[in-house]
Amino acid sequence: MPLPAQSPRTVSVSTTDAQYDILIGSGLIAEASSWSGLPSAACALIVSNTTVAPLYAPVLREALAAHFADVSVLELPDGEAYKTWDSLNLVFDHLLSAHSDRRTVLFALGGGVVGDMTGFAAACYMRGVPFVQVPTTLLAQVDSSVGGKTAINHPRGKNMIGAFYQPRRVICDLDTLQTLPERELSAGLAEVIKYGPIADAAFLAWIEDHVDALRSRDPDALSHAVQRSCEIKAWVVGQDERETGLRAILNFGHTFGHAIEAGLGYGQWLHGEAVACGMLMASDLSVRLGLMPEPFVDRMETLLRRAGLPTTGPALGTERYLDLMRVDKKAVAGEIRFVVIEALGRAAVRSAPDDVVVEVLERRTAVA
Amino acid sequence: MPLPAQSPRTVSVSTTDAQYDILIGSGLIAEASSWSGLPSAACALIVSNTTVAPLYAPVLREALAAHFADVSVLELPDGEAYKTWDSLNLVFDHLLSAHSDRRTVLFALGGGVVGDMTGFAAACYMRGVPFVQVPTTLLAQVDSSVGGKTAINHPRGKNMIGAFYQPRRVICDLDTLQTLPERELSAGLAEVIKYGPIADAAFLAWIEDHVDALRSRDPDALSHAVQRSCEIKAWVVGQDERETGLRAILNFGHTFGHAIEAGLGYGQWLHGEAVACGMLMASDLSVRLGLMPEPFVDRMETLLRRAGLPTTGPALGTERYLDLMRVDKKAVAGEIRFVVIEALGRAAVRSAPDDVVVEVLERRTAVA
Repeated sequence: MPLPAQSPRTVSVSTTDAQYDILIGSGLIAEASSWSGLPSAACALIVSNTTVAPLYAPVLREALAAHFADVSVLELPDGEAYKTWDSLNLVFDHLLSAHSDRRTVLFALGGGVVGDMTGFAAACYMRGVPFVQVPTTLLAQVDSSVGGKTAINHPRGKNMIGAFYQPRRVICDLDTLQTLPERELSAGLAEVIKYGPIADAAFLAWIEDHVDALRSRDPDALSHAVQRSCEIKAWVVGQDERETGLRAILNFGHTFGHAIEAGLGYGQWLHGEAVACGMLMASDLSVRLGLMPEPFVDRMETLLRRAGLPTTGPALGTERYLDLMRVDKKAVAGEIRFVVIEALGRAAVRSAPDDVVVEVLERRTAVA
Repeated sequence: MPLPAQSPRTVSVSTTDAQYDILIGSGLIAEASSWSGLPSAACALIVSNTTVAPLYAPVLREALAAHFADVSVLELPDGEAYKTWDSLNLVFDHLLSAHSDRRTVLFALGGGVVGDMTGFAAACYMRGVPFVQVPTTLLAQVDSSVGGKTAINHPRGKNMIGAFYQPRRVICDLDTLQTLPERELSAGLAEVIKYGPIADAAFLAWIEDHVDALRSRDPDALSHAVQRSCEIKAWVVGQDERETGLRAILNFGHTFGHAIEAGLGYGQWLHGEAVACGMLMASDLSVRLGLMPEPFVDRMETLLRRAGLPTTGPALGTERYLDLMRVDKKAVAGEIRFVVIEALGRAAVRSAPDDVVVEVLERRTAVA
């Protein structure tokens, strides 16, 4: 009899309407017990992409076969550029041509794009079917798979069309991080780093001490980073599922970051890369607004560089940046709202004078 | 000083997450007080169609101007055939090009198609903005605008993509029914009639006594029909918003009816016409299953005919009917579920042997 695998660590998420667990551990996809106790159904559909499906879909399919009579797999094209209505419609076409009913359970196997699209498909199909997140990238494990934000992009803005719709469970199999491309690992570290300045100064210091271990994929370091990130995210989402207040702090770096992604065209930079650069801009803004001491910007820049992340924005032009940020979901009546750091471990949402924002953009973007 | 208008009648809807009022009365669109107390916002968008907008959008726009600084109007093409993603995207394009933020309030001015699409657009835009239903057809006033079901059609099935998303208010201006084409008035009567057999035997008798008054648009008769219908719908939705049980009875006639609509192509028959024919089929099924005495079918047929509604289904072929009904949202694991009448005023959801369904279809559809 083989030695039982180490028990997974569990983080619980509680919102007004939903309660579910995030399981974190090695080898969880292959474990039949990871999938017990889900809503009973005859059919399960694994939604994945052309990169991840060949690696993990066969293992997941076999594990799910213990609980579902009929398990099928749908591969979507890979990449942020495909986070569109057309891809979403591939899921609907598949479900409808298979006569899938309201009890069908969807499994999102992949990164943030697969998770966002599968979650939104589950939210809309027959006005809602259950779904489970099986994130296979660091970014999805620490951020996008937790908290029930689902969406697709619109040519005029990222994540503009979507729903708040909670998964029934999140399974973070740490083994999947071993096959992740270097660039994607770094992109995930951007969201890990984010949790430090907005919520936990001690975690920021821990990341500084362990960034090399994380980049070399040390299992213990990754396990702690995923768990602490999920704990912070669950704590925020539990207080403000619908982003009427506190939850907005999770968008630290995202106002600038979304502008970078939309301005370059989705898929040029990874989301985490754009967020990294955006966090440095937002840190600089916090200093220029007199909220943080000057060394904070250098500290962030050093850490982001050590994590293998970009710290200089693309040369879109200042006006284009401002235009793109005005359609951000946090904007109110055309006024851009930024997440700023007020103290290490504490963030707030506020507007800023255009000229200060322009100073930040001029300092932190490449010259055309 | 003009005589104040008669106070509107109010029906309240309470679900787990939402509480809102349905106001029913004459001249409500023009009354500024109909629109007070909604979520505060700078922007309002009236979504309507090319038929209704010329009649009522200017009046609504003027009334809303007392509460919103910027009120715009978007006209969608008219008809069930346009209840598609492409039409929905016109709403998103409009909102995004106007830089509309999360506080924007949408107003659905029109029939069921406008209401379903505007509601779904509100549910998805930036993951949810407030919306108000302003139904201008009898069908929308008594049924589709109440209860928070929103959706678009998919080529493979009606209302397959959508959300449960409650409006902040429903304003039923009875005056709009005076401009309604005869055929649409009858289609609305189908949903009024529905409430009798499923929930209120006395209301069924009242409709039989007043069907001529309703067709000649007697204001008192219309007012009572709308109010009682909304009361019954609010009572059902208040107990089961997400259609996990009781709410399914509201789909009496809809399993057959959706097959008629999908089989002919959306827009050939009006939704209410298909439901009328479907109700007669479901009544016949209830009799053949031994649940109701035989005269019930004739009683329903007589009433539907007097209401100006079709009672013979199109010649799609029995197999095609069965195929189309298998993708109905109530189906479970490919087994079709029907709403049947167990006693006057009481309905249930159950399956039926294929051969009995075939008998019904052969008796109640035209010969090819």
